[in-house]
This record gives sequence, structure tokens and C-alpha cells, in this order.
Amino acid sequence: MSTALVILAAGKGTRMNSDLPKVLHPIAQVPMLEHAMAAGRSLEPERTIVVAGHGADLVRAAVAEIDETATVVLQEEQLGTGHAVAQAKDALSGFDGDIVVLYGDTPFISADTIERMVAARARADLVVLGFEAADPARYGRLVMRGNTLEKIVEYKDANEEERTITFCNSGLMAGDAKQMLGLLEKVGNDNAAGEYYLTDLPALARAEGLSVTAVSCDEAETLGINSRAELAKADAVFQAKARAELLDLGVTLMAPETVYLAFDTMIGRDTVIEPNVVFGPGVTVESGALIRAFSHLEGCHVSRGAKVGPYARLRPGAELAEDTHIGNFVEIKNAEIAEGAKVNHLSYIGDASVGAATNIGAGTITCNYDGVMKHRTEIGARAFIGSNTMLIAPVKVGHEAMTATGTVVTKNIEDGALALGRAEQQNKPGRARKLMDMLRAKKARLQKGAE
Amino acid sequence: MSTALVILAAGKGTRMNSDLPKVLHPIAQVPMLEHAMAAGRSLEPERTIVVAGHGADLVRAAVAEIDETATVVLQEEQLGTGHAVAQAKDALSGFDGDIVVLYGDTPFISADTIERMVAARARADLVVLGFEAADPARYGRLVMRGNTLEKIVEYKDANEEERTITFCNSGLMAGDAKQMLGLLEKVGNDNAAGEYYLTDLPALARAEGLSVTAVSCDEAETLGINSRAELAKADAVFQAKARAELLDLGVTLMAPETVYLAFDTMIGRDTVIEPNVVFGPGVTVESGALIRAFSHLEGCHVSRGAKVGPYARLRPGAELAEDTHIGNFVEIKNAEIAEGAKVNHLSYIGDASVGAATNIGAGTITCNYDGVMKHRTEIGARAFIGSNTMLIAPVKVGHEAMTATGTVVTKNIEDGALALGRAEQQNKPGRARKLMDMLRAKKARLQKGAE
Amino acid sequence: MSTALVILAAGKGTRMNSDLPKVLHPIAQVPMLEHAMAAGRSLEPERTIVVAGHGADLVRAAVAEIDETATVVLQEEQLGTGHAVAQAKDALSGFDGDIVVLYGDTPFISADTIERMVAARARADLVVLGFEAADPARYGRLVMRGNTLEKIVEYKDANEEERTITFCNSGLMAGDAKQMLGLLEKVGNDNAAGEYYLTDLPALARAEGLSVTAVSCDEAETLGINSRAELAKADAVFQAKARAELLDLGVTLMAPETVYLAFDTMIGRDTVIEPNVVFGPGVTVESGALIRAFSHLEGCHVSRGAKVGPYARLRPGAELAEDTHIGNFVEIKNAEIAEGAKVNHLSYIGDASVGAATNIGAGTITCNYDGVMKHRTEIGARAFIGSNTMLIAPVKVGHEAMTATGTVVTKNIEDGALALGRAEQQNKPGRARKLMDMLRAKKARLQKGAE
Repeated sequence: MSTALVILAAGKGTRMNSDLPKVLHPIAQVPMLEHAMAAGRSLEPERTIVVAGHGADLVRAAVAEIDETATVVLQEEQLGTGHAVAQAKDALSGFDGDIVVLYGDTPFISADTIERMVAARARADLVVLGFEAADPARYGRLVMRGNTLEKIVEYKDANEEERTITFCNSGLMAGDAKQMLGLLEKVGNDNAAGEYYLTDLPALARAEGLSVTAVSCDEAETLGINSRAELAKADAVFQAKARAELLDLGVTLMAPETVYLAFDTMIGRDTVIEPNVVFGPGVTVESGALIRAFSHLEGCHVSRGAKVGPYARLRPGAELAEDTHIGNFVEIKNAEIAEGAKVNHLSYIGDASVGAATNIGAGTITCNYDGVMKHRTEIGARAFIGSNTMLIAPVKVGHEAMTATGTVVTKNIEDGALALGRAEQQNKPGRARKLMDMLRAKKARLQKGAE
Repeated sequence: MSTALVILAAGKGTRMNSDLPKVLHPIAQVPMLEHAMAAGRSLEPERTIVVAGHGADLVRAAVAEIDETATVVLQEEQLGTGHAVAQAKDALSGFDGDIVVLYGDTPFISADTIERMVAARARADLVVLGFEAADPARYGRLVMRGNTLEKIVEYKDANEEERTITFCNSGLMAGDAKQMLGLLEKVGNDNAAGEYYLTDLPALARAEGLSVTAVSCDEAETLGINSRAELAKADAVFQAKARAELLDLGVTLMAPETVYLAFDTMIGRDTVIEPNVVFGPGVTVESGALIRAFSHLEGCHVSRGAKVGPYARLRPGAELAEDTHIGNFVEIKNAEIAEGAKVNHLSYIGDASVGAATNIGAGTITCNYDGVMKHRTEIGARAFIGSNTMLIAPVKVGHEAMTATGTVVTKNIEDGALALGRAEQQNKPGRARKLMDMLRAKKARLQKGAE
Repeated sequence: MSTALVILAAGKGTRMNSDLPKVLHPIAQVPMLEHAMAAGRSLEPERTIVVAGHGADLVRAAVAEIDETATVVLQEEQLGTGHAVAQAKDALSGFDGDIVVLYGDTPFISADTIERMVAARARADLVVLGFEAADPARYGRLVMRGNTLEKIVEYKDANEEERTITFCNSGLMAGDAKQMLGLLEKVGNDNAAGEYYLTDLPALARAEGLSVTAVSCDEAETLGINSRAELAKADAVFQAKARAELLDLGVTLMAPETVYLAFDTMIGRDTVIEPNVVFGPGVTVESGALIRAFSHLEGCHVSRGAKVGPYARLRPGAELAEDTHIGNFVEIKNAEIAEGAKVNHLSYIGDASVGAATNIGAGTITCNYDGVMKHRTEIGARAFIGSNTMLIAPVKVGHEAMTATGTVVTKNIEDGALALGRAEQQNKPGRARKLMDMLRAKKARLQKGAE
């Protein structure tokens, strides 16, 4: 059975107090919308339709980055969840199968839960996702008879008996696309808000003789986000779970609560992560590496035996081979560092390749930008780059080549050659003392003048 | 009605185990005394009198920095709270109005509470601040009859019925200055400690036919600090509150508990603060900025659209205009960075101005200190400062000027000019391999010799 | 009475999911085994015997670093705790005294508890350590009659009455070496696991008419570690305790939960530690120092009045005298910084000495490594090292000497002399604008060609 995801992402999120549409606020370094989309991806959906409204252009751009096959449709006016799903009609044209309705601001829904919803279609025409609420007060109640969902009752409309029900409505729903779209045409807006509610579908379905059921998930999966405080809390929930998973996999986190992980951080067994490390998106660290304190990694790969930090910044495109060392106050961007190479202190290596076992001295900079374009630096194996070497790209340094400290390298260096560019040191006896005396006298004159 | 603040700040704070007077220990980067003084400032007091004792010279210096209009009086011997307030007598000479007694080690008292105390003077001669204690055991009890405070009973003197009272004494008091000073002369020291207690005032006032009342505040406001652990806890309380306020204002804190805020940190809506950021005093960040991980900001201003960090240090006087970028391992001090300018890597820009859209290359240093005096560097707009440029201040670089990588700039550069100072690179074929062979042979000889 | 420690450290720790033997996983920067060994050291044991098994070579190497007088014996097959202690037999040859059995994965046992166990030998032949369990379910129970331990009952073998006992077995034991080794020969392995259990000893001892007693410790001391999550939790327990101790000693931790301490971190009174500081092993900080945010210290000494950071990295052998300043993005390794000297920005000082009141300019690097060997740099007092000075070691800079900005120092500088090595700055009028125009035109051509 083919499936389509319809993800509601039109809300403004007034309580976010933001110009950014709510669903684009990040959890673990990616928009919360991406979390919901990722959960749905396990269905291998034939179509993914995101219903945007507030900030639709921004949502469209973000969705294009997350999944270029997804379609964004516009809900011009926010007239309720039923109305929102109905906007997907054109995008579902010619589609024959099930749709699953997800929410862009409900990021913790699991792939497993979505799969169970789809599986439950085997026994009913329409499937609603519910959860046992620890404190059900505000939620709509799912009135069940056996496996049949009789209706969804909003709290304000519920009688005393119904209010004792703790099985509550998450808002997620799955059903046959054509049936659901047909039912949605019958949903009315005769309510205080004048909105079209998706929650009317089960009753309408039952009225047409269709079967409706519910599946249950953990309440934590249904967590919705409406304020920055809730956003921060959701991020903390994500972090706690991700850290626990890494510990289970055999990663040492010396102080887990000080390690900030991204959505997709992957770390191998027996790698040690010291305190205060931040992972941006797109990082993989192999087994047996060491990531020292105060390191910051994004879009990079770290191989077995590599030592990173403290205070190392690995930016997108940093590829560290086995047994490399990246030390303190070092920035690596879009650069391959080959096996055993070392960049230990105060350096910037960008748009470059560094050969195996090469040592990069302190204060080395690849001057990759000429003010208009970026250029590459290529350094061979077993080379020795002296401290404070400036490598003006594009430039190549050969294998086993060497640069003298302080050299500005503008021309290629052949294998085994030494490049040298340095004004000779001249010592001026007594001159330092004289200079200091002059400066002190000048300062005294200035201070006297100021009085 | 004019008011005067009398702030008790004479205690040693034995349990702090410190040479620093207790009230000068910091919460959120400023002395705890400053928190109490700030709360009182909303009254626009005519006089502010701080009663110092232990470490009075240090307190005097600190108060002068916080509020130069405040008077510090000395309590030579610490003979109790009543005695302390009495030391303000001379400083109150000629003053006609109310005094409010605050405590330098009770930093969480709110402006609102102090205002309510003063307002309550309309209905009574003397006003005591109380609080409903969750666990009242150790506190003095406020015995009320209707709105009238009959007396303050110390726990040890309280009878069984009085001990059931949960409304407790905070120690804060407001009343007419002359009346209070008069009453203080009648306070005795016939007690175990031989001290003169301010808490005797209500009973003495009632005995003279004056009316006494109490107002109530949240217990958290009365939190006193007596040890480093309590200091740390108070700081944590401050942080939690300040973070929650920022979230409410529409600031994103990706991991709120890792962001350390100062007393006066101001951050605009839709600014994103990544994990592990520390704010010192005097920082304002406009809306829509990005402060990346591991950044440290003090006494600086960051404008809309600016990107700061990771690992950026903004020191006092750093002024970042809109859309500036300050990158990793960069220190900015007393410098204006104009719109769209970038300082992306490993640089020190101090005592300087950088023009709009100028790009500062990696490893650039403004050499602002000659060993005796500091000097300024001025860089124009749309300039391109090559990597590892040393700018020996005082020096000026023109608009659209350029420096070659590694140049030591000692002379001004006119608009559109290129400054160049560099020894030419010479390549010595085979020399690197020969050098390495020599060094390895030498090492081998040395090791052999050492055996 | 002389004592010997027998520390069981042979387990694999399957749930650690690691190639590293469990007891070598670190808590507070040292192997958990070291914590147990340190607790036992207060006995001044005549012999310390570590029983290794899984990863014995690694354990042997680690023990050699912790205590070179300790003996490591091999338990080839892991046949139970009794079997493990029996492996110490040869290593105890000729030893006449008590043995205390500790566990390498029970790091929180206190010296006091171990001393109380040994003291209890005055009243019994065999001493077992027990604890009152908050939730005793899984533990073996200690069945006491008065001061006599009748037997240890495993939970699965316990009757209903015994299961109500909350005094549980920690596994630690003390007794006469010869007696215990004799009894161990009688322990059988007739149980489900086919292992020889140390817990059988009390019953065997009683059967031989020996007296057995138990002493009690806090349950927290008996915390065992079996997974990375438990390891992280144990580290957190250590940190909380160590932070509280520092606060009590009069150290200010502005945000204690962000300061990561090592096993042996020592900090003096009235030192202030800002947020986000990491201590590796071997650090002592005297009273009245300031360690600023994002600093990282290992194996170093910081004297009174020194200011370190933010973003300072002190590596092993960094010795900071009084009133030194080490600033941002500065790395100090194996170097003495004399009184009042300053290294404020972006520098690497390694294998060096810096004289009193000397100022090291931004971007200074001691080039200590020639690709094969390391060499020392010696800088005198009151010297002024200009920004971006490269000091090619071995080299000496005299007192009150000076280097010009950007100088590569290859020759010694005498006292009071100025060293200068710099290509002269040449200004090329209009050249910057022309260059930029050319580069922009080139880029346009390239882009056009790419279309």
C-alpha cells in the first residue's frame, strides 16, 4: 500500500514571539519540522506534502533543503486543521493510497508509531493516534468501544463520565486518501472559532458506516511546542535521549549533560567525548577517537585514533583520517587531513589537503581568499610546515618539503625542497632600553601636558 | 514623600571563608550589594546610605562604582542591626522623609516589594516586611492582629501558639526617619549577644502609641546568603529567572542551562544563543543576531544580523554594527566594527575602528601597545587586510586599501593603495630532506651519547 | 599490624561495551581503579596486589603509572571472587598481617571505611563490610546476631524473614592473610555459575570457630559501575562532592555545575572560578587567583593573584608565578612564567621560561620543535616581545630586551638589545583597487565560461 504524508505546518506560533514560522525553530540543530518529516520517512512515502501558511516562503525554502521531493502547498487562511489537510487535495491528485497526517510542531512522534498507525488500517478505515495522558484535563477524549473509536469529544463538550477518560487525542490520523478528502468536504465550521476541525472526521466516518479505530503511543511522543521555553525543553528531551543512546553504544561522555548533540550525530564505540563539546549537523566520529573539551564540530568526519581539541573547530568538509591530531585554537574547513598528520596550535586550514604524517606548525594559515575567490592549498606527505607559514592559495607544497618559520609561500615547493622567505634578524645593542626610556619620557610629557 | 535607603553591609560573613566582605561577593557578575541597591533605586531615593564594617574600604570603593551619589558610613563595631541603622544618623542629618532598611546580603528583594512597603506607610507609622515561610522553624514570627503587627517574637522566645505562626520576619523595615532614629535610641542590648536589634523597634513603637503594620512578599525574595554554596545557589536562582525572561521575550536559547547571564544582559527578540555562552556585565544584543557556541561577551554591543563566534571574545568597548561577522579565536576590544565587516579567524582587534564591508584576514593583529602607551588603528571601508598583517598603531589604512599577507604596517596606507612588506620566497631544492637527515642523525648521536 | 590490599580488577565489564578493561574507564580523569587504590593508600599497606584478567596488559601498565610498588597478578580464567583473591597467594608469600579485599569497580569506598574495617579486626577474625540498602532487593543479606555476622545469604537463597533484612553485603572483606587464604582453599564451586565465591568465607570461618563481624558504611560508597551510563553518573557524583568541598574551602564557583574537576584538583581560598572551566589531573591553584571562563588546565600550578583566561590552555609543566596574566587563545606548556609576566593573546609558549614583568605580544610563538627534537626558549625579565615574534629554539632573549613585531628570532638577543627582522613596507598607490578590479573581472570571465 502506498502512503502519502500530509504535514501541517501553517501555524504562526504566536507564543513563540518570532518572525520565524514556528515549525522552523530548531531542535538539535534542525527545524522541528524536519524531525516530523524524518519520522515519516520510514514509511517510504510516495508523496510528502507540507501545508504551509505563516512564513510560507521560508517554509518552502527549508523543505526544499530537507527533502527536495516534498511538495509545499499553501493554506492562505488558517481555518483549522481540517481545512489545512484539504489544501493537500491538488497535490494528492492521482494518488491512490493512504495518507498519514502529521504536525510540524510535534517533532517527537516516532517512526514506529507511524508504522503502527498504517498497520492498523488493516482493521479500520480511519485510524486516530491516542495516548494515555498523565494529566488529561485539557485534551480531547477518545471514546472507545472495544477497538472501535466511537468519537472524539472536546473537553468543553464532554460529560462527566467522558471526562474521566484518560485516553486522549493526539491529532494524528491515517486513512484512505480519497475517503478522507471526501469526508473533509462534509466538515462544517459551526463552532466558536469558525474553523474546520480534522477531529470531526471520525464521527463523520462512523456516520457513513466506515470503521474507525485508535492506536496508542507514549505521551512524550505527542509533545507539542508553543513557546521558546517549550522549544528549549524539547531540545533538552532530545539531548537526554541521544546521550543515553550514545552511552549504550559504548561511547564515553565524561559529563553527558555538557555535550550538545545534533539530530544526526554519529559516534563510534570507545570514543571518548570530554566535557563541553558541541556537535552541529552532519558529524560522524569513528570508534576509538578522542574529542577533547571545548571542541566544536560540524559537517565533518573524524576517523579512528584521531585526537581533536581542546578548542578545535571542525567545519563542514573537514575530513580527518586515522591518528590525526587537531589541537587548540585550530580551525579546519573543507580540508582533508591525511593519516597521522598534525595541526596542533593556532592555525587555520581551509580549502586544503594535508598529506600523511605532515606536521603543520603553530600559527600556519592557508590564505584561501583573495577578496573575490577561494583557492586551494595542497600539501604533500611527511612535510614540515614551519610556524607562522602563510600559504597563499592556489599553491602546492611537495612531499617531504619544508617551510622556514614565517615564510609567505606564493610559489609551489617541490618535493624535498625548503622554502625560505625571511628578513634577517639584526640585533641593535642597547636600543631596547633607549626606546623604552624615550617612550616613558614621552608619556610623562603627555601626562604633564594634560594636567 | 522623599525616601532614603539604609543598606546594612557591615557583616563579615564568617561562613564565606573569605577576605572579601560578604556583600561584595558577586551574583551574576556584580556584587550582591548591587542587587539590593538596584532594587531600591526604583524609589528614586533622595539619599542612599550604605553601612559598612568589615572590609569597609573595599565596600566604599565598590559603592562608589555602583552609585557615586551613595554615602558609605562606618559601623566600627558590629553591635547589631539596630546599632547599624543608628550609624546612618549623621548621613540623614537634615533629611525629612521615610527610610527603608535593606540588607546587602539579601539580593533578591524586588523593587515592587520595596514600593509596597513605602506605600503601606500611608496606613502605619512603621512597616515591617514579612513572608509566609514554607519551613518557619528558625525565623522570628510576626504576631499580627488584623493589619496591626503586635510584635516580632524570636523563635527561642515564642510560646507554643506563636510557634505555629508561619508569617515570618524578613528584617526589612520602613518608617519615618526621625521617628525610627528616635526609637533606635531606646533599643537596649540586654540579651545574650549584647547586641542592639532592629527587631525591637515595632514593640517600642507600639509602646509609644505608634501604629505598626506588615506587608508580605514571596519567601524567595528574602533569601539571605551566608556561604559560597548559598552564593552559588543564589546565582543559579538568578540565572533560571533571567533565562526564563529571555525565552519569554522571544530569544532562542538552544540549551538555556549552559548560558551564563549577567545582571544586566539585554538580548533582542529572535536572537539565537547557542550552547555555552558567557555574558559579562554591560552587554546588549539587538534582535536577529546569532551568538554562537563558546562565545564570551563583556561590555559590548552587537547589532541586528551580526554573527558572533564560535569562540569569539568581545571585550568592553566592542561595538559591532549590523551584519558584521566575528569568527573563531578572535578578540575584539574597544573597537568599532562597521556594517558588514568581517574578522573571521585568529585575530586581535583592539583600540581600533574597522570600516564597512572590510575583510580582516586570519591572524591579523593590531599592535596597540608599545610597552608604555596604547594607540589606535583606523581602517577604512571596503579594505582587504591580508592574513597575518601586523598593524603597528598609531596607523591608518585607507578605504579600499589592501595589505599583502604578512606585512608589518608601520606607515599609513592611502585609499586604494596596496601595502607590501615581505621577504621573497626562495626554494632550496633537496634542502628539506638534507636538513631532516641531519637532525635525525644528530638526535641519534645524542641518544647514543646519553646511553 | 601490617596490611596488604588485594584489589579485584579482572572483570570484563561486558555492559561497558568496550575494548578497555572496565577498571580503566576514568572517573574525574583517572581510572576508576585508581580511586579504589587511593582509598586503600591511607592504610600505608605493605603490599598492594591488583588481580587482573581481561585486558591484563593494559591494567598492568596503568597500575605501574598509579603506584609502581604495586604488584599485578593474573587471574587467567574468571572463576569468581574467591578464585580471584586466591590468585594473590604467591604475591602474599612471606607476608604476615591482614589483607583487605577491595574492588576496582567500586571507586567510592572511603579511606575512613577501610580503616574502620581494619580496626574491627581487633574484635573478630574476619570483617565484612555491609551497608543499609534503601532498596535491598537484589543484594545478599548480612544475617547478624549482635556484633556477630552469622552468614551472608544470597537473595535467591534467602527465606522470607531474611529477605526483610536491609543490611546488605558490599563484597569487601578484611582478615588475616594466612587464615583467609586457608579458608579460600575450602570454598567450592557447586553452584549454578560454577564459580568460587568470596562470600562463602564467613560461613566457612564460623564453621572453623573463627569470629566474624561486619562494619557498616554509607550505601553510596558501595556504588559499583557496570555501564557507561553508570560511569557518567559516578563521575557526576564525584563532581558534586568535589565542588561542594571547594565551596566549603572558600572557593567561588560562579556556576559550580559547569566546572569539571579532576581527582586531585586543589584550589585555594578566595580563588574565583568562572563558568565552563575544565581541570585535568595534577592542577594546583593557589589562593586569590582568577580562572576565567572556558579555561582548560592540566598538570600545572597557578600562583596567587594570577589571572588565567578566558580561553587559556595550561598544559603539563605550566608554572605561573604570582600576578601573571595568561589571556585568550593562549597555550602554555612546560614553561615557567615569572612574576607579573603577561601573555595576553593568541600565543603558544612551550618549553620556555619567561622572566618577571615581561610582556609577550599577541601571536608570539616559541618554535620548539624542529621536526625531530624539542628545544627551549629562555626570555629574561622586563623584556618586551613584539607581536607575532617567532622564537626559534634553542634561543635566549636577554633582560629588558625587545623584539620588533614580526621578527623571526634565530640568534640570541643580549640584555637591553632590540632584535629586528622585517621587510620594509612599500605602498603602491592605486594598486589595491586595480588588483580587486582584475580579480573581479577574472571571476566574471570564469563564471561566464562556466555557463
